[in-house]
Amino acid sequence: MPMTLRTAQDQDATVAVAIGDSARAAEWQAALIDAAPDFTIVRAEAMAAPAVADFAVVWRAPLGMLSRFPRLKAVLSLGAGVDGILSNRELEPGVPVVRMVDEALTQGMVEYVLWHVLRYQRRAPELLAAQRRQEWLPIAAPLASERCVGVMGLGVLGEAAARRLTAIGFRVKGWSRTPRQLDGIETFSGTTGLAGFLGGVEILICFLPLTPETENILAAPLFAALAPGAFLINAARGEHLVEADLLEALAAGRLAGATLDAFRTEPLPADHPFWKHPAITVTPHVASLTRAASGARHLAAEMRRILAGEAPLHAARRDRGY
Amino acid sequence: MPMTLRTAQDQDATVAVAIGDSARAAEWQAALIDAAPDFTIVRAEAMAAPAVADFAVVWRAPLGMLSRFPRLKAVLSLGAGVDGILSNRELEPGVPVVRMVDEALTQGMVEYVLWHVLRYQRRAPELLAAQRRQEWLPIAAPLASERCVGVMGLGVLGEAAARRLTAIGFRVKGWSRTPRQLDGIETFSGTTGLAGFLGGVEILICFLPLTPETENILAAPLFAALAPGAFLINAARGEHLVEADLLEALAAGRLAGATLDAFRTEPLPADHPFWKHPAITVTPHVASLTRAASGARHLAAEMRRILAGEAPLHAARRDRGY
Repeated sequence: MPMTLRTAQDQDATVAVAIGDSARAAEWQAALIDAAPDFTIVRAEAMAAPAVADFAVVWRAPLGMLSRFPRLKAVLSLGAGVDGILSNRELEPGVPVVRMVDEALTQGMVEYVLWHVLRYQRRAPELLAAQRRQEWLPIAAPLASERCVGVMGLGVLGEAAARRLTAIGFRVKGWSRTPRQLDGIETFSGTTGLAGFLGGVEILICFLPLTPETENILAAPLFAALAPGAFLINAARGEHLVEADLLEALAAGRLAGATLDAFRTEPLPADHPFWKHPAITVTPHVASLTRAASGARHLAAEMRRILAGEAPLHAARRDRGY
Repeated sequence: MPMTLRTAQDQDATVAVAIGDSARAAEWQAALIDAAPDFTIVRAEAMAAPAVADFAVVWRAPLGMLSRFPRLKAVLSLGAGVDGILSNRELEPGVPVVRMVDEALTQGMVEYVLWHVLRYQRRAPELLAAQRRQEWLPIAAPLASERCVGVMGLGVLGEAAARRLTAIGFRVKGWSRTPRQLDGIETFSGTTGLAGFLGGVEILICFLPLTPETENILAAPLFAALAPGAFLINAARGEHLVEADLLEALAAGRLAGATLDAFRTEPLPADHPFWKHPAITVTPHVASLTRAASGARHLAAEMRRILAGEAPLHAARRDRGY
């Protein structure tokens, strides 16, 4: 359900928005009209002359879409991850890709992660299983300060989550591609820092961008380096996880549980073993949603910067893949 | 499993500790020895001359215990609530009762409450039910800032929880017997303030002390004043809740769910309808546990104040019942 946008004074400045879900396409169109009333917003499929489009605002740009717009000044993402856009062979080499940065998206992600970290810290699976057995089982939970949480990826989302977890009292370690300094958080970086990061981590959260380096990183060697009986929360991409290794680590007790929000195939196929696994929590890619109102303000500001000849504030680095 | 304590230089200064659970009695004895090495700590049942005991440190002082110690300078509680001690007819009128105040107890309670508030905010019951049906159901969750949480009782625990929920972004309302001012929290007090407090509350948390005024307060009229489809978290006492009214409010949809940590009879009897109710989460009085190390330091400090002729910092007010 794509839409296009055209500046009032210049019929050449046009934005095409393509998202996979029509209800949200209408919502984005309305929010973009609010955020940029001097632009003309048109659905891409309703556009008579795609050659005049300056911007494409896309969710997962299906093949055949970007190639319709030969004069794009930028492609703007509606989601936090841009791996789908960067890997699209119809993306012209010189066209910048703008990432979605949205306070509501960040806040929602932090709340999702907090819920699952607290579930595991408070021994929710054991308590809820005891209730199902009608068994009064007063098991003590550790305090947050007695739990070590590892945050992989210290971009906007990972940093916000790490800071919130620290404020609540958790002992937090962070890992990123390049070195970072964060108050109260023990940070590690690069391949050489990975073993030091993983050691002792009892709850691991993956916020990594999907790149050739991070694909399949959640696998047997990584699981073996965590504290025994650790928990995994994957809020990033299904392609980060080697599914067979997760099932094996759970069966062997090296991991005690996993919460997964993203999958290699979405919706998760009905016959997938994750659905019925007692130690796996499946959430249907709802960790966080971009809010149209705040997201459209971000998109409008980035488009104006580009029209003014400035670099966007949140351009993806195509060389590093995010 | 009671124990007694005796100062080294004064055989008359003795503390009797009685708790219902022998594993913890040993733990408390060890922690008290660490916290007050100049005292002599003896289990009450092993005490040759109960008449010399200055202090009783008790959990739920069963009948027949306090009456054994005729010269108590104070009774000190091992738990946050003192309703069981204050209602004990063997408690002498002039003997002060000291409440447990323990940073670990507070922190644990805040983490328990945060877990359940986030569960309800993130629509966990619906998501987990969809997983059981193997259904991909991408339902959006509101942000914390779009949820109104009501905190009943603004003592040490309620205030700490209200502040933490506010820091995470929730809209928080608070209610207490006497007026309180808390930054960023809309506060109400007394019977006249109750309706204003309850209106619009979507998640209600009860931290109230158990008194004749608060007994049975969680009942049909209160449920009807909340936002439709609200959630209840009772982290206080089973006697606050009218069980039949809760079941009726859930059946009618006025409440959407409840998490209960305390019950009129504990352990909750095997045939109790709460166990199998799909909208009720039962936790076995584990919201928070006093930690022996930090709790014993608090008890030792209060005993020293009393021995020095000072008032304890955390005396229960027998006239108001907490």
